[in-house]
Amino acid sequence: MSQSHTYTVAVVGATGAVGQKMLETLEDRNFPVHELKLLSSSRSAGTKVVFKGQTLVVEEAKPESFENVDIALFSAGGSVSKSLAPEAVKRGALVIDNTSAYRMAEHVPLVVPEVNEADIEHHQGIIANPNCSTIQMVAALEPLRNSLGLNRVIVSTYQAVSGAGNEASEELRSQSQAFLNGEDLEANLLPVKGDQNHYPIAFNALPQIDLFQENGYTFEEMKMINETRKIMHSPELAVAATCVRLPFFTSHAESVYIEVEKSGVSVDDVKQLLTNAPGIVLEDDPATQAYPTPLSAAEKRDVFVGRVRKDLDNDHGFHLWVVSDNLLKGAAWNSVQIAERVVANGWL
Amino acid sequence: MSQSHTYTVAVVGATGAVGQKMLETLEDRNFPVHELKLLSSSRSAGTKVVFKGQTLVVEEAKPESFENVDIALFSAGGSVSKSLAPEAVKRGALVIDNTSAYRMAEHVPLVVPEVNEADIEHHQGIIANPNCSTIQMVAALEPLRNSLGLNRVIVSTYQAVSGAGNEASEELRSQSQAFLNGEDLEANLLPVKGDQNHYPIAFNALPQIDLFQENGYTFEEMKMINETRKIMHSPELAVAATCVRLPFFTSHAESVYIEVEKSGVSVDDVKQLLTNAPGIVLEDDPATQAYPTPLSAAEKRDVFVGRVRKDLDNDHGFHLWVVSDNLLKGAAWNSVQIAERVVANGWL
Repeated sequence: MSQSHTYTVAVVGATGAVGQKMLETLEDRNFPVHELKLLSSSRSAGTKVVFKGQTLVVEEAKPESFENVDIALFSAGGSVSKSLAPEAVKRGALVIDNTSAYRMAEHVPLVVPEVNEADIEHHQGIIANPNCSTIQMVAALEPLRNSLGLNRVIVSTYQAVSGAGNEASEELRSQSQAFLNGEDLEANLLPVKGDQNHYPIAFNALPQIDLFQENGYTFEEMKMINETRKIMHSPELAVAATCVRLPFFTSHAESVYIEVEKSGVSVDDVKQLLTNAPGIVLEDDPATQAYPTPLSAAEKRDVFVGRVRKDLDNDHGFHLWVVSDNLLKGAAWNSVQIAERVVANGWL
Repeated sequence: MSQSHTYTVAVVGATGAVGQKMLETLEDRNFPVHELKLLSSSRSAGTKVVFKGQTLVVEEAKPESFENVDIALFSAGGSVSKSLAPEAVKRGALVIDNTSAYRMAEHVPLVVPEVNEADIEHHQGIIANPNCSTIQMVAALEPLRNSLGLNRVIVSTYQAVSGAGNEASEELRSQSQAFLNGEDLEANLLPVKGDQNHYPIAFNALPQIDLFQENGYTFEEMKMINETRKIMHSPELAVAATCVRLPFFTSHAESVYIEVEKSGVSVDDVKQLLTNAPGIVLEDDPATQAYPTPLSAAEKRDVFVGRVRKDLDNDHGFHLWVVSDNLLKGAAWNSVQIAERVVANGWL
């Protein structure tokens, strides 16, 4: 299918933090959009949004909204995807879903193009976009798994508030100002909108992202464990995760400890593999204090890796510091990238 | 030696972040102070400080300042300790040093009272207070090592700016306000005052604490590795650390992964050991979202542990989330606690 084809694209959740980045990314990438349909909940319907200089009005998402849509990018929460993605598929649209609704479903490919692009081909109408913290980690680990083998991953995350939506960014902003003014902090949303207790995020760290599961892990932690195995086609891979929300707006950072299968691997070997890997930028030079940070990675589509070190006690162990914009590679860009691969390969 | 004895105590670095907390802690604990000498660099000499309702004037620290001093608490930087601690010892004072100057010296006990109080007895005039991020970790791990055996530690830290002194807290404050005002961020101090480049900490994360070593680890990371082994008398213990500075003022948090020697240990076993451990408060209940945070631990002397989980793939693996006020248990309180044990045991 050549680039002269153009597509009717729907964005569901167009007014949200990820939806806004999806529109920016479609525009930046000059995705071949014939017509753009902006959809949302009834609450946000009527909002005006500018795309390529044209003002578009957001409409309420309904089953009929997907008539004649080629590609539907969903990012309006799991319940919206559960009810409307099948309706979109029924009407012939390909759904790229950024919620957790279908990620672990057996016949739904869960895709990070740098890792498992070929899985896209077997889709049955829905392709799932993984969790933000999973995407950047597997993008960085795949070149190492591929060349060195991967036995084990232990990750501690440093995650931005924008992963919890625009309201969470507003909460960080208002709490930060209150703190600096010496006022009391009001917490109404984080760590999890639907949970019973809310704690301040400003000048704090919350070791809870998403709801607790029965095994004592949070859902975010279980997403990192289960999605990593699925994307990497490594059902036996040992993955251990601790996910922490922090007071910054954009980009997730991750302290990743891995054990590779191969013996005698050097730091330079690992750096070389990362330098050659698609979508990865190695930023690592202790002599010039070069390493990625949430601020330096923001608004960029790449996954940045620094602080590559070999474990001083374990020939197979390595540390990585992995940073990426959680709304771009972690969400909007990965979704649009899937759409680009679909179009380029004729997998629609 | 009974509590009716009183002591002449010197605080070197009395105007710094830790020095201020030392004075608060001496007062809060009602330490038997006969006379208090407040010492500092010439720059801060003349500053007035209130202790137990009395206004004291800070004097410039000189060799002669330590005449008739019984206990000298040092926290004015490594170079001050290197030049003046031997002068204090020569004049009969016991030095409790909160810098890294003597921590790894062979005949200097490196002490966290809950872990290795008995080491104090063999001091030769200087007792070293460990690095803040090390103290809270070993306090939490010692009861587990003691009952279950400990094979391995992999830690990622979430560290407050006050660990870099009052100036660093001021930098976070002013940068945060500038960011909220939409102004450019000026970085003059962090990650390390003496290093060549400075990066914004406000709404960011910096994966560098202290200077880089030749092996690619930072000095902070090497402190956690080497000091943990010394305090726990476990020279072979595998410790791997990644240290990260974050935009909050007080308390360090740590995502600690351990492998215990014993098989078949349950989460409840680990929780029970922590509940019974001195200086440790277990705050861990997913059902009520109970876990410690930097804000909740601030201004408290305990080490708080939460998010205790067993590795889903490894019978020996456990996760802990360890939080403590870096200026109290991480510095001032641990130093005063050592002084209390010295006095109680007649080890002066």
